Amino acid sequence: MPGEGYVVAVAGATGAVGRELVRILEERKFPASQLVLLASERSVGRRMAFRDEEVPVDALAPESFDGVDIAFFSAGAERSRRFAPAAVEAGAVVIDNSSAFRMEPGVPLVVPEVNPEAIRSHQGIIANPNCSTIQTVVVLKPIHDAAKVERVVLATYQSVSGTGQKAVEELDLQVRALLSFEEPTCQVYPHQIAFNILPHIDAFEEGGYTREETKIINETKKIMGDDSIRVTVTAARVPVLYGHSEAMNVETAYKLTADQCRDILSRAPGVLVVDDPASNAYPMAIDAAGQDVVFVGRIREDPSIECGLDLWVVADNLRKGAALNAVQIAEHLIQG
Amino acid sequence: MPGEGYVVAVAGATGAVGRELVRILEERKFPASQLVLLASERSVGRRMAFRDEEVPVDALAPESFDGVDIAFFSAGAERSRRFAPAAVEAGAVVIDNSSAFRMEPGVPLVVPEVNPEAIRSHQGIIANPNCSTIQTVVVLKPIHDAAKVERVVLATYQSVSGTGQKAVEELDLQVRALLSFEEPTCQVYPHQIAFNILPHIDAFEEGGYTREETKIINETKKIMGDDSIRVTVTAARVPVLYGHSEAMNVETAYKLTADQCRDILSRAPGVLVVDDPASNAYPMAIDAAGQDVVFVGRIREDPSIECGLDLWVVADNLRKGAALNAVQIAEHLIQG
Repeated sequence: MPGEGYVVAVAGATGAVGRELVRILEERKFPASQLVLLASERSVGRRMAFRDEEVPVDALAPESFDGVDIAFFSAGAERSRRFAPAAVEAGAVVIDNSSAFRMEPGVPLVVPEVNPEAIRSHQGIIANPNCSTIQTVVVLKPIHDAAKVERVVLATYQSVSGTGQKAVEELDLQVRALLSFEEPTCQVYPHQIAFNILPHIDAFEEGGYTREETKIINETKKIMGDDSIRVTVTAARVPVLYGHSEAMNVETAYKLTADQCRDILSRAPGVLVVDDPASNAYPMAIDAAGQDVVFVGRIREDPSIECGLDLWVVADNLRKGAALNAVQIAEHLIQG
Repeated sequence: MPGEGYVVAVAGATGAVGRELVRILEERKFPASQLVLLASERSVGRRMAFRDEEVPVDALAPESFDGVDIAFFSAGAERSRRFAPAAVEAGAVVIDNSSAFRMEPGVPLVVPEVNPEAIRSHQGIIANPNCSTIQTVVVLKPIHDAAKVERVVLATYQSVSGTGQKAVEELDLQVRALLSFEEPTCQVYPHQIAFNILPHIDAFEEGGYTREETKIINETKKIMGDDSIRVTVTAARVPVLYGHSEAMNVETAYKLTADQCRDILSRAPGVLVVDDPASNAYPMAIDAAGQDVVFVGRIREDPSIECGLDLWVVADNLRKGAALNAVQIAEHLIQG
């Protein structure tokens, strides 16, 4: 995909991830000769700032993709299934942020720090992983390369922005209501999220797992290219606006000391080690918000097994967990 | 310890746990013929409601315990170390909520649903475990009895009331400041807790573990009476006022299906199973607040090992996690 500039479309431009996509394309000076913003009917007519322009938002339709080179999709799985084939048909490469195609065998599922080579095998669609999966594999990969990861036990602390802009507003409104001793209203989540923890992200499936948990398990194996890695997850929603945190327990085939692990991760791409307990320095959601790297800290040997590590992993779920990773995929794509 | 009524002292009466202790003694009609409320100098002169009385708060001193039968301590480890020996000397049985004596070999560490028999061996002091330990072992014990627990990987989501009343106020003030676009101030915690997660509870120790994490590991083994149980923990503070949540991964020697585990826990003392994903029913901190039982749900088989279970465990950290457990110990004590 050579050329001076690319016609870039963003489907779902007005959502939390869509707006981050537009910001990041500008920030990273992505060589876009034209930006096409697409959303549902009710957003048509809005304008969004991009470089020195005010770009109008058009309605997402099968015919939106004429002349488009790269189409970012972030409008939910249903819309990806409906419109991505038309975009591919029109000659665009789709980078899809939804779960629609992630587990399809012909669709590369890519985190550029982990499996950039997979991009080359695309047949029109490249899938962007789940937010929690991305920060998990960015940290797991260097550990896997050094000591072979055998099992991961993960507990997530996921912020409401992962659900979308409406959930950010719901947390804000619920907190305001509760501080005024009023009954909070629940529209996005089935229960109050303010001052509460919900062990429930996405729909429940057979066996009691949520779809979010299943996604993290399956996507981790696919991106790491190793089905033998065993993973279990409990995914929980926390009253945090931006930034997902994770308590990660890793069992490896070969022993890594905490110092060795810290050393490996300090040299890993896209990772920033923040691990100085003596000065109360560890990764936190409020520090990760707006940042590009995956933060890791609290690195310590797990005394309960011979070769085990406990880590605390935090990233901005809208950036590295979604929009940034998608733009990084596009950057690799145009570099050929 | 026979008799119609007992002289009961509460050291640290004005703190978050102390106030809960006084409430629970009244609620459960504990046979107290007299209540002695003790606190630091600056609380002297305050009065607290107990039954139809207004009981004055006195200064905690070595001579506070003349005639006291049962002395609840909840004024921090330092004060327990300083004043508990005087209480024992004066003939009282001390039920200590601090970490001061928990790991001493001669001191029983008791959760009445798990090891009530340990109460009998006391030599004047009985220790009340850490809040997170209590809800962990109430759920682990019936699983251990049925299928032998070999390893536990725990991630906690602990509310600010576990730190004390000042932390509850700090979260409230920080949230109000942030909603008014003001800079929040941090006095209790080293970092902002509002809309954030802190992977940091109590002081850091060698090896990178926090004292809270070490407590949960060591206390679990002592209460379960089985040093072979291997435990690893990541303890995190979350912006929740009341109620600690836990993502618990359990590896057992013998296979339990999720249904078998659910069945065992439904019949376990002090446990309430809330596990109906189809109707979005699972344990939540806001529901646990003010309740006596330990809530467990999201019970599912862990696909990453042969005999593994994932569970979500929630309890009121001030009640079952502290004051209620202490009063239950006292109830066993007076029943002989």
